[in-house]
Amino acid sequence: MLEVLDWLATYGAAPDGGVTRLLYTEPWLQAQQALLAKMQELGLEASFDAVGNVYGKLQGNRYTLRPVLTGSHVDTVKNGGKYDGAYGVVASMMALGYLKAVYGVPKRSLEVVSFCEEEGSRFPLAYWGSGHVTGVRSLAGSIDVADPEGITLSEAMREAGFQTANLGDHPAKREDIGAYIEIHIEQGSVLGYKKKQIGIVTAIVGQIRLTVVVKGNSNHAGTTPMTMRKDALAGASEMVVVTEQMALEEGEPLVATVGRLHVKRGTSNVVPGEVEFTLDIRHTDELKMDLFCTKLLTKLNEIARRRELTIETVENLHASPVAMHEGISAEIETACTAYGFQSMKLPSGAGHDAQLFGPICPSAMIFVPSRGGISHSPDEFTEPEELVVGFQTLVHVLYQYGYGGKADEIL
Amino acid sequence: MLEVLDWLATYGAAPDGGVTRLLYTEPWLQAQQALLAKMQELGLEASFDAVGNVYGKLQGNRYTLRPVLTGSHVDTVKNGGKYDGAYGVVASMMALGYLKAVYGVPKRSLEVVSFCEEEGSRFPLAYWGSGHVTGVRSLAGSIDVADPEGITLSEAMREAGFQTANLGDHPAKREDIGAYIEIHIEQGSVLGYKKKQIGIVTAIVGQIRLTVVVKGNSNHAGTTPMTMRKDALAGASEMVVVTEQMALEEGEPLVATVGRLHVKRGTSNVVPGEVEFTLDIRHTDELKMDLFCTKLLTKLNEIARRRELTIETVENLHASPVAMHEGISAEIETACTAYGFQSMKLPSGAGHDAQLFGPICPSAMIFVPSRGGISHSPDEFTEPEELVVGFQTLVHVLYQYGYGGKADEIL
Repeated sequence: MLEVLDWLATYGAAPDGGVTRLLYTEPWLQAQQALLAKMQELGLEASFDAVGNVYGKLQGNRYTLRPVLTGSHVDTVKNGGKYDGAYGVVASMMALGYLKAVYGVPKRSLEVVSFCEEEGSRFPLAYWGSGHVTGVRSLAGSIDVADPEGITLSEAMREAGFQTANLGDHPAKREDIGAYIEIHIEQGSVLGYKKKQIGIVTAIVGQIRLTVVVKGNSNHAGTTPMTMRKDALAGASEMVVVTEQMALEEGEPLVATVGRLHVKRGTSNVVPGEVEFTLDIRHTDELKMDLFCTKLLTKLNEIARRRELTIETVENLHASPVAMHEGISAEIETACTAYGFQSMKLPSGAGHDAQLFGPICPSAMIFVPSRGGISHSPDEFTEPEELVVGFQTLVHVLYQYGYGGKADEIL
Repeated sequence: MLEVLDWLATYGAAPDGGVTRLLYTEPWLQAQQALLAKMQELGLEASFDAVGNVYGKLQGNRYTLRPVLTGSHVDTVKNGGKYDGAYGVVASMMALGYLKAVYGVPKRSLEVVSFCEEEGSRFPLAYWGSGHVTGVRSLAGSIDVADPEGITLSEAMREAGFQTANLGDHPAKREDIGAYIEIHIEQGSVLGYKKKQIGIVTAIVGQIRLTVVVKGNSNHAGTTPMTMRKDALAGASEMVVVTEQMALEEGEPLVATVGRLHVKRGTSNVVPGEVEFTLDIRHTDELKMDLFCTKLLTKLNEIARRRELTIETVENLHASPVAMHEGISAEIETACTAYGFQSMKLPSGAGHDAQLFGPICPSAMIFVPSRGGISHSPDEFTEPEELVVGFQTLVHVLYQYGYGGKADEIL
């Protein structure tokens, strides 16, 4: 499994250790084709779907049981690491290869999937692969979307050998999935900090993204006494501090972040007249998330009013949290206990393909530690031992649903 | 005087009402040449000096008395207004024309000057004109400085018809100035707020400019719990708020401004790892300014330490305050009382050519109101009545030093 992970990282590799596989580019296509060949080598029935997801099926002998799908995504951000997505694809594929080699034909079909696109780093089409499978995404309306170089999705798909017409004849959408299980690096540092080997994801957080514009009066920094100022940056700064403070008071798992802040025409000798910043609020409980957002905006408005500033907020995203399945999560925990792996429950603060499956079928996620919480960077790293621990856990759970005690359970 | 001010604004005028006269450009040169011709029309002895300052001299008959110089600058910022600098040049020139026409030859010589460059908006050479006159600036070391288009100062000077070699033969430096008086728009809103017609400048503030770099850890906004963050922007925001708070506590005339703040690689879903911001601190009392700066930096370091952030500060400028002359200022006040003009004393928070003269001869400044405190913008505006009030005040003071009770005073 470790060797195959290194091998996959050669597709789109840069000399500095970074990996770049953007949707429908040559490195991306070669990686998917290579994965398809590797799945065939492992004895799986491998195929592309209409948008470029690659499946490898280990057919079970009880045809009435809905299959368990396991996998992750093959695309990367620009100059990303070799673990994000890739680890889930490789671990899932090698798990099925191992199970077939050791236990033969399962009762329930098990399928590995390498989703074609999760990041949205070439086109603004995050979850393009899993979105098609779950019916959330479709080509209609996206076909003319262009990448930063002006190449449209339609051109990019045809270039990579995919059809862009009559997809109705070859739908990527699946209606038969029984469950979805994804293993992924944490992309955070909670597991490392708590010295745990396995994270059992309780829910993928919901998210609110806002843009906040604060306006005051732009004035000369030398000639405007402190008491006569309407300083948009001083106001925005107070808002940033209050956001952090209220999020700390609210406590985990809520997080609130001001990641971007721009002073319009900012110059050292001018009192800032306008500031724009982003607000990113996440929680596993939608009601609490919305309530926090309302309380925070009330407070920001108070600050603006007191300082005689104006404030405008625009909501750019409102995504509901997605709970993971308790039954599958319990199986993950059982596996950890059986092997003596240190595990903990935690929410996923980042988005994953699993959040598309959560609403339509039992879904679960297994996390392994990310050194320093770093991801989307060539510095992304997980210890080989930790990758193996995750792999063993996944194999155990897939065995249970394919061959073992859960193989007859109706999903 | 009002007509001449409008006439001068036609040099470098844009359709939107903005005025742009950058050092050694065509509109600038035409304006200086037109002013020279206008000075001759008014009966003044007009001349360019070696770097492009234009003088108009009203020769007095007591040759032992050092002349009083009055004026301001002809250059503008890009798309500036028609009052900043230009008002002082025009009011001074018309004052001398008026005094000559009405009172004839003065005892003490009076000279108007149109400084070639104060703003530093083409080359980074603020106070280029008055700096040469006072001996603070010289061509040596600046001749290869380039503007944003790559044109060197040397090329720009030659293009405009000025020599760049053997300036020693035609020095711009003056050793004979008895006093310097400048009338200027306030570029602040204190006069308007206090409903005063004339500001008598007590001192031009000193200034400290710092760049502050705050570093924490850049992390995923979803996966990093609030308690595990080292958020450079939250830290910097607390610093901005504290700067404002401490400046308010210190009270006038101190001002402290964060005008520029940049989040390095700021993205909505990433906890900021690095923030750079500017600090601009001004006061009329150097000791108090330095003390405030020390106290503030101590506090910013405390914030950084508490948040486990690093902080680096670089001082880019440390300019001492320049006191204006009490005797001349008293004459300005006397004039206001005589005419019934409402006046007040105030510091100048902005820099002016007068600060170059302050250390070498008695210097004074008269302010007229700026509507809304706006300057460096086409929206810069002063009511015609207010311009006339300033003009009358200036005429009175120049009369006193040229013909009246102060004409024999040794300066």
